[in-house]
Amino acid sequence: MTPLGRFLRGATHPRGFQAGGVACGVKRSGRPDLSILLSKRPASAAGVFTTNLVKAAPVLLGEELLRRDPSGMRGILTVSGVANAMTGAEGIQDNRTLLESAERCFDVPAGSLLPACTGVIGPRLPLAAVLAGLEPLRTSTNAGRDGVRRAAHAILTTDTRAKETATSGRLADGTRVRFGGMAKGSGMIAPKLGPLHATTLGFLTTDARVRPAALSRLLASGVDRTFNMVSVDGDTSTNDTVYLLANGAAGGAYADDDPAFAALLNSSLESLARQVAKDGEGATKLLTVTVRGARTVADARSAARAVVGSTLVKAAVFGADPNVGRIACALGYSGAEMDPDRIDVALRSGRHAVPLIVGGRPAAGLDNGGGKRVRELLLRLEEVPLEIALHRGRAAATAWGCDLSYSYVQINAAYHT
Amino acid sequence: MTPLGRFLRGATHPRGFQAGGVACGVKRSGRPDLSILLSKRPASAAGVFTTNLVKAAPVLLGEELLRRDPSGMRGILTVSGVANAMTGAEGIQDNRTLLESAERCFDVPAGSLLPACTGVIGPRLPLAAVLAGLEPLRTSTNAGRDGVRRAAHAILTTDTRAKETATSGRLADGTRVRFGGMAKGSGMIAPKLGPLHATTLGFLTTDARVRPAALSRLLASGVDRTFNMVSVDGDTSTNDTVYLLANGAAGGAYADDDPAFAALLNSSLESLARQVAKDGEGATKLLTVTVRGARTVADARSAARAVVGSTLVKAAVFGADPNVGRIACALGYSGAEMDPDRIDVALRSGRHAVPLIVGGRPAAGLDNGGGKRVRELLLRLEEVPLEIALHRGRAAATAWGCDLSYSYVQINAAYHT
Repeated sequence: MTPLGRFLRGATHPRGFQAGGVACGVKRSGRPDLSILLSKRPASAAGVFTTNLVKAAPVLLGEELLRRDPSGMRGILTVSGVANAMTGAEGIQDNRTLLESAERCFDVPAGSLLPACTGVIGPRLPLAAVLAGLEPLRTSTNAGRDGVRRAAHAILTTDTRAKETATSGRLADGTRVRFGGMAKGSGMIAPKLGPLHATTLGFLTTDARVRPAALSRLLASGVDRTFNMVSVDGDTSTNDTVYLLANGAAGGAYADDDPAFAALLNSSLESLARQVAKDGEGATKLLTVTVRGARTVADARSAARAVVGSTLVKAAVFGADPNVGRIACALGYSGAEMDPDRIDVALRSGRHAVPLIVGGRPAAGLDNGGGKRVRELLLRLEEVPLEIALHRGRAAATAWGCDLSYSYVQINAAYHT
Repeated sequence: MTPLGRFLRGATHPRGFQAGGVACGVKRSGRPDLSILLSKRPASAAGVFTTNLVKAAPVLLGEELLRRDPSGMRGILTVSGVANAMTGAEGIQDNRTLLESAERCFDVPAGSLLPACTGVIGPRLPLAAVLAGLEPLRTSTNAGRDGVRRAAHAILTTDTRAKETATSGRLADGTRVRFGGMAKGSGMIAPKLGPLHATTLGFLTTDARVRPAALSRLLASGVDRTFNMVSVDGDTSTNDTVYLLANGAAGGAYADDDPAFAALLNSSLESLARQVAKDGEGATKLLTVTVRGARTVADARSAARAVVGSTLVKAAVFGADPNVGRIACALGYSGAEMDPDRIDVALRSGRHAVPLIVGGRPAAGLDNGGGKRVRELLLRLEEVPLEIALHRGRAAATAWGCDLSYSYVQINAAYHT
C-alpha cells in the first residue's frame, strides 16, 4: 500500500474498523454532525478525559463505561455542534438514550459504544433529530475511504480541515500492526493539570492485541507528551476526550509491554496533535517549541508550554516580529528553574539554526529593532520551530501551538451566535 | 479642595511631592519618555517587583536599593520605551550611571532615587540621550498639575490614557493625610505566583508617617488584592514594579498599624488597578469578576482570575455573546474547589442582577442561543460586572480584566517594529 493510500484510510487503516458520518440537523449550517467509528470485533478500549471540574455528560458516561468493562468495546459515537455540557441529569439521560438506540441500530451489545460530544456548552442534545439520524448513519458506514472521510469531517466544529493519521509497523514478535486515527479541535485547547489531562477529541485505532490495563497506561503516557503539549488558547474544555480502540485483528502476542507498540502509538498521537495545533482557530503558522537542558522533565514541559502559550509570543510570530524578549519573558515566568544569563534560543530553518538569544542576551542585530533575516524567515516559514537550551540539566520536552491572528478574535467573538 | 482639584493633582496631591516629564528621544515617536517623581523630604519607601526570573536591570537595582536603606528615599526615575531587560551587567551599569547623574542634577543624596523602566525587551538604554534629558527634566519638574501630568504621560507605552489617583482621609489620631499615584500598563499584564507578585508600573505617594517595614507589609498586601488581580493577557513582565513613598509631611503619629491608612492605600491601589485593566491593549470593556462563597481565599482568587483571564470569555464579552458555558468552563479548570451543579453566575446592571447560570445550568432562555436581553446589556455596558457564587464557603475575591478585541492582536503583532 502506498503512503498516500495508507493516509487516506485514516482511522479505518487498521483491519476490522469501519466509519461513517451524516448531517442530522444539530448544526444549523447543515454540515455533518453525527458520526461513528466501529470495530467489527470486540476491542480493548482506553480513554483520557478532561480534568475540568465541569465535565460534559459524554465525559461522565465515557468514564463510567470504561470503568465498568473496557474489554469488549465496539466503537465511538460522536455528536458535534452541541457539547451536552451544563445539562445536568437530563443531559446524561439524553446521551444514554442515544447510545442505546445506536447500539440497537448497529446491532452491537449494550454498553459497547463510547460517547463523545463537542460544540456549544449549555443546550441539550436535540434528541429527536439525532435519533432520526442513526439509520442514515448506519447506511453511510463502511470500511472504505468514503466512510472514514465522512466521520473525520463530522466530528469537526470550527476546524478548517479534517485531521487524520495512519501508519504501520512491526512488533517485537514480528506481527505487522496498523494504527489509524482522527482528531478534532482548534479552539478551547490547552493542556491542564494532573497525569491524565486530555485535550480536544482524538480517536485512535489499532489492530494490535493489547489488554485494557496496558492500553490505558500507554495512552495516558502518550497523550501526556503529545495532546497535552498542545496549546491554542489556554482554555481547557469540558469535553476533551481521547479514546484508543485495539481490536487485536492483527493477531500475534499481546503487545502490552512492547516498546515498538508504544512508539507507533506515540507517533500517531503526535501526528494528530501537530495537526490540531496547526489548525488552531485563526492560525497562520504552526509554532513548535523544544526545550532542552532543563533540570527536570516537568521544568522542560512548563518552559515549552509557557512559550507556546504566551499571547505576546504568538502575536509576534503572527506579525513576523523578531521580538525575542517576549520568549525570554515567557521562560522567566514559566516556573522552570533557569539562570537567565544562560538561556539560548534559536530558530530552526532546515539545517540552519539562527540564533535569537545567546547567553540571555538578544543575538547580534536583534537588540535594536534589527533582525531583517529573522523577519524574512518568520514571514516565509509555515512552521516556526524554536529551540531553547537552558543548560541546567538533561531533560527535554516539545510543545506545539500556533500564532494569534485577527481571525482568532473574529471566530470567538461570534462563534455562539 | 474640590474632588476634581484633588484628582488633577494625582501623585503630587500629598504634601511635599513634585513631578516632571520630558521627551528625550528613547521613543522614536517623540513622545515623553523620561520622568521623575520627587519628594522634597526623605521618605520611607517600599517596592513590590515582578516574580519573573528574567528581571530587568531596574528591578534588580530597585530591590538592592530598598534592601540597603528604605528610609531616606527621594523619588523614582522612570524611562519608557526601553525595558533595560536582557542587557546583563552593562544594563545594570547603565541604570546606575543614570541614577547617579540624576541624583546630582536634582541635588538629592546618592542612592535616594529608585529606578523603573518599561518598553521593548532587549535593547540597552540610549544613555547619552537620557543623560541629556536630565536638565530639561529638572526644569519641567514642579508641584503643580503641569508637572504631574507630564510625568503620568511619560511613563506610558501602548496605554491610551494616563492613570492617576488622588484621595484624602483621616487617620486614627485625627491626622488628615493624602494619597496620590500614577500607573502604567496595558499589555504584558498578569498576576503571577508568590506572595509578592507585582504587575505593570504603579507609583503611590502619601504624606502619612509610616516606617519602612510596615510600609512594605501594607504595600505587599494591598498589591496582592489589586494589581495582582488584574489580567490583560496572561504574560508577566520582566519589569513589573510598584513603589510606595511615604514622606511624613502630614505629621501625626506613625500609621504603621492604623487600619484607616491601609484602607486608604488599598483604595488608591484599586483605583489604579481598575484603570490599568480598563486600558488593556485593545480593550473596549472593563470586565470585573467577583467570586463569593469559595472555600478559601486562594480558591476565590483562582476562580476569579480564571474567568477574567479566559480568552474565550474575553472574546465573548467583546462580541456581546451570552455564551455562558465559557464562564462555567473557566471556573471548572481554575483549580478552585466547587460543585459544578451549584454554580450561580449573574451579570450586575445597576441594582439588578441578571442570572446567567443557575445551579450549574444556563439561565432560562440562555441555553439555545437566546439571551437577547443579556446581549443588549453586554453591548451597552462599558463595565461588565460578573458575580459568581460557589456555595462552598465564605471566601471572596475580585479580579479585573478586559475584553479581547481585534486591536489587541494588531497592537501586539506590530509593537516592536
